[in-house]
Amino acid sequence: MSGTLYGVGLGPGDPELITVKTHRLISNAKVVAYPAAAGVESFARRIAASIIPEGTEEISIEMPMVTARFPAQEIYEEAAKTIAARLEAGLDVVVLCEGDPFLYGSFMYLYERLMDQFPVEVVPGVSSVNACAAALGRPIASRNDVLTVIPGPLENDRMRPLIENAEAVVIMKVGRHLARIKGLLSDMNLLETAGYVERASLPEMQVKPLADLQSETAPYFSIILVYKGEETWKLPQQLLS
Amino acid sequence: MSGTLYGVGLGPGDPELITVKTHRLISNAKVVAYPAAAGVESFARRIAASIIPEGTEEISIEMPMVTARFPAQEIYEEAAKTIAARLEAGLDVVVLCEGDPFLYGSFMYLYERLMDQFPVEVVPGVSSVNACAAALGRPIASRNDVLTVIPGPLENDRMRPLIENAEAVVIMKVGRHLARIKGLLSDMNLLETAGYVERASLPEMQVKPLADLQSETAPYFSIILVYKGEETWKLPQQLLS
Repeated sequence: MSGTLYGVGLGPGDPELITVKTHRLISNAKVVAYPAAAGVESFARRIAASIIPEGTEEISIEMPMVTARFPAQEIYEEAAKTIAARLEAGLDVVVLCEGDPFLYGSFMYLYERLMDQFPVEVVPGVSSVNACAAALGRPIASRNDVLTVIPGPLENDRMRPLIENAEAVVIMKVGRHLARIKGLLSDMNLLETAGYVERASLPEMQVKPLADLQSETAPYFSIILVYKGEETWKLPQQLLS
Repeated sequence: MSGTLYGVGLGPGDPELITVKTHRLISNAKVVAYPAAAGVESFARRIAASIIPEGTEEISIEMPMVTARFPAQEIYEEAAKTIAARLEAGLDVVVLCEGDPFLYGSFMYLYERLMDQFPVEVVPGVSSVNACAAALGRPIASRNDVLTVIPGPLENDRMRPLIENAEAVVIMKVGRHLARIKGLLSDMNLLETAGYVERASLPEMQVKPLADLQSETAPYFSIILVYKGEETWKLPQQLLS
């Protein structure tokens, strides 16, 4: 009997935003695996640190600091083999995933390599989209609003019509695209309705009206939220003062 | 000192998908409030039932079985007054919200009535979007995919370009619009890539390729997921057999 591969969502960063189910799975894990940028503490491991039992085997999947796709593919290939060996030995493997495993996560690269050979269970987590809205203090969408989630690297020509055609817009992975996106929203007369959140739910979280943000770039884990639907939601008063 | 209003996300239905934080807040609650359709067990209360302490005051916000907006507004007005009285008396009030409080939830109608007078904290929850993808066994979106969430009641003329312009599409609140949406996706040659999930994470959950679904209507809590991005994700083999 082979073990089960669990992909568990850890939520946005606050360890209390882990679900009861994921908490239970990690607390009982004999083997956990997680992504890490080479030489840097794994964010996924940081979220789960206080729950991982003493003596649990930890498989760190280290990504080099390059953006090319092919080295990453080799590393996932290697990691999938390591994990497959544990599963074949009858051990469950719990893969720690920031946010939700299936929403812009890296779990899918292990999943596609292992799903046909082993039992897999994906445990959904709180997405940073939901955590950013909670931090901002403004609903994301309601009733018949269309919500579009746009990756920050997309060019303005693609981004503009997407923003025009939705009532609620979330722009993810803002990072070095901040100044350009801010310019686009300003052109579209949407700057006043835009909120900015970085590192949601962590002690170092920043929440601001986008218009108040002075810097030209932002961390990778930053999100812009725009609302232009039927409801009269504005940015909360305490943010503006 | 007034109490704090907590809007807590309960996740999609499985009580184990409640976060540790929401579990703690409900376990210690002196007053909870939740929406309910008149004469029917509250779904939010059902999710949290085993955690609500003995002796906790329960405020049930009963909605009549009509879709008009104005009676609902009166009921929220009334509920907000009841809750305000508890907050003024120094008691915290924990409002139980299906899914995530700020994503197509009803919490916002209490929030907009109370946010200026009382301290409020929103605790994000696992959205049914993430739970449906986990149940279907296919990632929602990756890399630079655009994800658009579309309410099922929207007309085909609005829905079609939204689907065309996104790599990942989630259609919520499918309900009585099932046959029409299925027809649209079929016209667009997207039926094969569409998955269907109802009552995600509950014992009565249904997961199917949309093409296999025979009925003309679906429950309110049903979702269609379409993926047409760069990755070669198909519906999992075990669903198709």
